[in-house]
Amino acid sequence: MIDKAQLVSRINSELRSIPDFPSPGIIFKDITPLIKDKETFALIIKYFAEKYADANIDYIVGVDARGFIFGAALAYELGIGFVPVRKAGKLPYKKIATSYELEYGTATVEMHEDALDSGDKIVLIDDLLATGGSLAAAVELLEQLKADIFAIETIVELGFLDGRKKLEGYDVNSLVIE
Amino acid sequence: MIDKAQLVSRINSELRSIPDFPSPGIIFKDITPLIKDKETFALIIKYFAEKYADANIDYIVGVDARGFIFGAALAYELGIGFVPVRKAGKLPYKKIATSYELEYGTATVEMHEDALDSGDKIVLIDDLLATGGSLAAAVELLEQLKADIFAIETIVELGFLDGRKKLEGYDVNSLVIE
Repeated sequence: MIDKAQLVSRINSELRSIPDFPSPGIIFKDITPLIKDKETFALIIKYFAEKYADANIDYIVGVDARGFIFGAALAYELGIGFVPVRKAGKLPYKKIATSYELEYGTATVEMHEDALDSGDKIVLIDDLLATGGSLAAAVELLEQLKADIFAIETIVELGFLDGRKKLEGYDVNSLVIE
Repeated sequence: MIDKAQLVSRINSELRSIPDFPSPGIIFKDITPLIKDKETFALIIKYFAEKYADANIDYIVGVDARGFIFGAALAYELGIGFVPVRKAGKLPYKKIATSYELEYGTATVEMHEDALDSGDKIVLIDDLLATGGSLAAAVELLEQLKADIFAIETIVELGFLDGRKKLEGYDVNSLVIE
């Protein structure tokens, strides 16, 4: 079994805080050291894989683009398929879309309309839960497809932004809460 | 051992061709069915992992964003770290950048300047080799960091675009060549 407390401590020591990115006043949490370190990366994936090994999950759904890194490796380890939620304009086939508010303007996320069948049991993963806008938009698409959202996982949650309020009713988990 | 001919045939049967995306006259190769199918996804990753298991690769480098899906799972399976090449504006720390031409305008890719050390042995992966612009730009960044590019891998190559000409001198491989 992966020791969660040790993993959290490891993540905290490697996560890089970058002030004033992408805009003044924001402290960006840089996860690239976590995925470059083979042991940390493996421990994160094994932690999630142990957690969901017996849950009969059909697909891991990952959010463009850092969610692909954790999500694809997790899907592989669990021996299941990976389904992407993409930024606007990237998916070529028939799709569904929803928009959410950013500090300035809006962003749109999309899924293929045949990405999931009704009742498919999924875990949604992204690297970061900040304001919750992109994850809530992903949830909205998954609800449109009638997917069974078993859980939502992120590596880092900015607790003071209270993004999980936008995900009420779901099992939202984060390895590290700042 | 993964049977490459069987894998290629499987990929060919699942790869979805979407006409006139993202612009008229282009036939887009949609890889989402390959990663949704747990067996195909696993076979692709295992094929690459077998190929590089004994090559002492330090890192898998994947290109934003579909290269993250294959690259992160491969890095995990090999027990090594994953390093992203990102589109402009996404990486928060000190970085290097290079631009390449698109049909209209240019695009920029970036890496953190500490993403790799001189001599790190890497495999560069993306889903598609088309005109070769983005992969050649990634190679330019890797050369700036003095990485040892052991091989370049893609799932699908559009051979008629002759993109591999931009990658001359490197070991460029594609599972499916159209």
